[in-house]
Amino acid sequence: MGDPAGIGPEIIVRALWQRPELRRLVLVAGDAGALRRALALTGLSDALRLVEVADGISWQEEPEEAVRLVQACDALAPVALGCVSAVAGQAAADCIAYATQQVLQGRARALVTAPIHKEAFAAAGIAHPGHTEYLQALAAAHAGVPVEEMPVRMMLRCPGLATVLVSIHVSLRQALQAVTQDRVLETVRIAAAHFRRCGVPGARIAVAGLNPHAGEGGLFGSEEIDIISPAIMQAQAEGMAVSGPYPPDTVFMRARQGEFEAVVAMYHDQGLIPVKLLGLEHGVNTTLGLPFIRTSPDHGTAFDLAGTGQANADSLLAAIDSALEMSAATAH
Amino acid sequence: MGDPAGIGPEIIVRALWQRPELRRLVLVAGDAGALRRALALTGLSDALRLVEVADGISWQEEPEEAVRLVQACDALAPVALGCVSAVAGQAAADCIAYATQQVLQGRARALVTAPIHKEAFAAAGIAHPGHTEYLQALAAAHAGVPVEEMPVRMMLRCPGLATVLVSIHVSLRQALQAVTQDRVLETVRIAAAHFRRCGVPGARIAVAGLNPHAGEGGLFGSEEIDIISPAIMQAQAEGMAVSGPYPPDTVFMRARQGEFEAVVAMYHDQGLIPVKLLGLEHGVNTTLGLPFIRTSPDHGTAFDLAGTGQANADSLLAAIDSALEMSAATAH
Repeated sequence: MGDPAGIGPEIIVRALWQRPELRRLVLVAGDAGALRRALALTGLSDALRLVEVADGISWQEEPEEAVRLVQACDALAPVALGCVSAVAGQAAADCIAYATQQVLQGRARALVTAPIHKEAFAAAGIAHPGHTEYLQALAAAHAGVPVEEMPVRMMLRCPGLATVLVSIHVSLRQALQAVTQDRVLETVRIAAAHFRRCGVPGARIAVAGLNPHAGEGGLFGSEEIDIISPAIMQAQAEGMAVSGPYPPDTVFMRARQGEFEAVVAMYHDQGLIPVKLLGLEHGVNTTLGLPFIRTSPDHGTAFDLAGTGQANADSLLAAIDSALEMSAATAH
Repeated sequence: MGDPAGIGPEIIVRALWQRPELRRLVLVAGDAGALRRALALTGLSDALRLVEVADGISWQEEPEEAVRLVQACDALAPVALGCVSAVAGQAAADCIAYATQQVLQGRARALVTAPIHKEAFAAAGIAHPGHTEYLQALAAAHAGVPVEEMPVRMMLRCPGLATVLVSIHVSLRQALQAVTQDRVLETVRIAAAHFRRCGVPGARIAVAGLNPHAGEGGLFGSEEIDIISPAIMQAQAEGMAVSGPYPPDTVFMRARQGEFEAVVAMYHDQGLIPVKLLGLEHGVNTTLGLPFIRTSPDHGTAFDLAGTGQANADSLLAAIDSALEMSAATAH
């Protein structure tokens, strides 16, 4: 469901209204009251019917207009739309925990998450800055391993461009510290493993430099020479189709023109600026490295839009389609 | 001319071939041999005629097919195309120095530079990493002030997007150090002054954050709170139409959609990734803060293309057009 004070509930019902064939495939882990309000806000109360299904009960035998929902958090009193609250943050976290157990136990094929608000998460005392870290902790606990043994990376995609990030929700200063040979190599390995699992074993992976012009031969920084190139050489030695480091300001254009299947980006905005510029409404966030498929739209809770019924469901639909596609590709 | 081992000479003759009306307006400061070779490489030896004009002599009385050239460096033996050399770096520097004197003395209305190669510049012992710093030093010397009193900033433009950079050719680590309240404020002032001079006094300037999500309220870095916001408030107090700091991964999209005339970017790749992605072939680099107009294409020497005669002159033409436009706007 995502944060019930954001656009999550509205884009969920809008997506399932726009694409009737998805209704038999999607179980919404959310709050019945929040979803009913979203139906009213989007004017879809008559077009769709919310059917609450009990945990563990088959939920595929419903009529065509049914949106299947499981009450995955405490039933909420209506939360103020567009406002950070601990109650909303906790409900979002509970829904994530419920849905993650479903995929971990093999009762669902993939997890698609609607946007949460990081300040609401923090207000609720959730000890993880965002979805990715929370999912990693849940998966590690399920596997009985420490979090460090389940490294994950965020991949962002829009039509024509995919980028996998060395680090995400840290300051740029901390992101510089995260550019180590081990982390860069691990990112390339995780990216290559993803494409292998999806049936594209030879996917060409470009690695972006950290500095302007990829350091211009050491003139503007030495991380390319000392850290990134050795990581690339190690990955090449392991048989991966990886190359670089390339100047950050042109590598994304080259990938988009078809030279690479993905770009490993050294920090959050290096990868997100180009993806969001090219396709905000069709961007998909995928978490690589988890023992299950997880996608999400690449936008936030859009508190300014929440309650207007106007939020666009394209990115959520792209996330659902991408999850179905990967689920089909990895089933072979 | 730019570096004679790169595509500079070829795109100059191609540009002047494509747009005959520019031939009466443009004086090429370069090497006659390098330009003649470029005519041959592009198959334009018969279509255009190179006319060498002496320094100080009126150069507007030539026939229509004439490309006007002043020999602005020592006459070169042919340099190896696509290779870094000190000779080529020195020739490029000499041409910049010559052309800059022309605009500083009011004998030309604007300076448009073709690409140089930074390693060739360094090989020639030029004590400046790139054009911008060299022009700043020449202008400061002409004005008789220390370089610090002539702060300049790079502006990159493509259709629909303009960005002004707080720092350019330094490592990302050094770029973080350059994000100070004074430098951010100075960047906003220089950007606002540029738009004022060009007849757009109310230009809306957005300031990007430094950290992911602009720090998300301090969760991922404090530079937005401690440094960038105070600089914005000071600029607002001085009457400028500036706002921010905005999340870096969506501010460029918002500017492109018409919400802002320009984005102040905190470091090189934050600004260059979006501009290059949107319009590599039509990107224009403008140096703000100099006592004259200076533009250049936003691509490099393209050593891999040099000598093929295939290099595209669109960005150079955009730079020439932009210089003419600004020259007309500031003349009022």
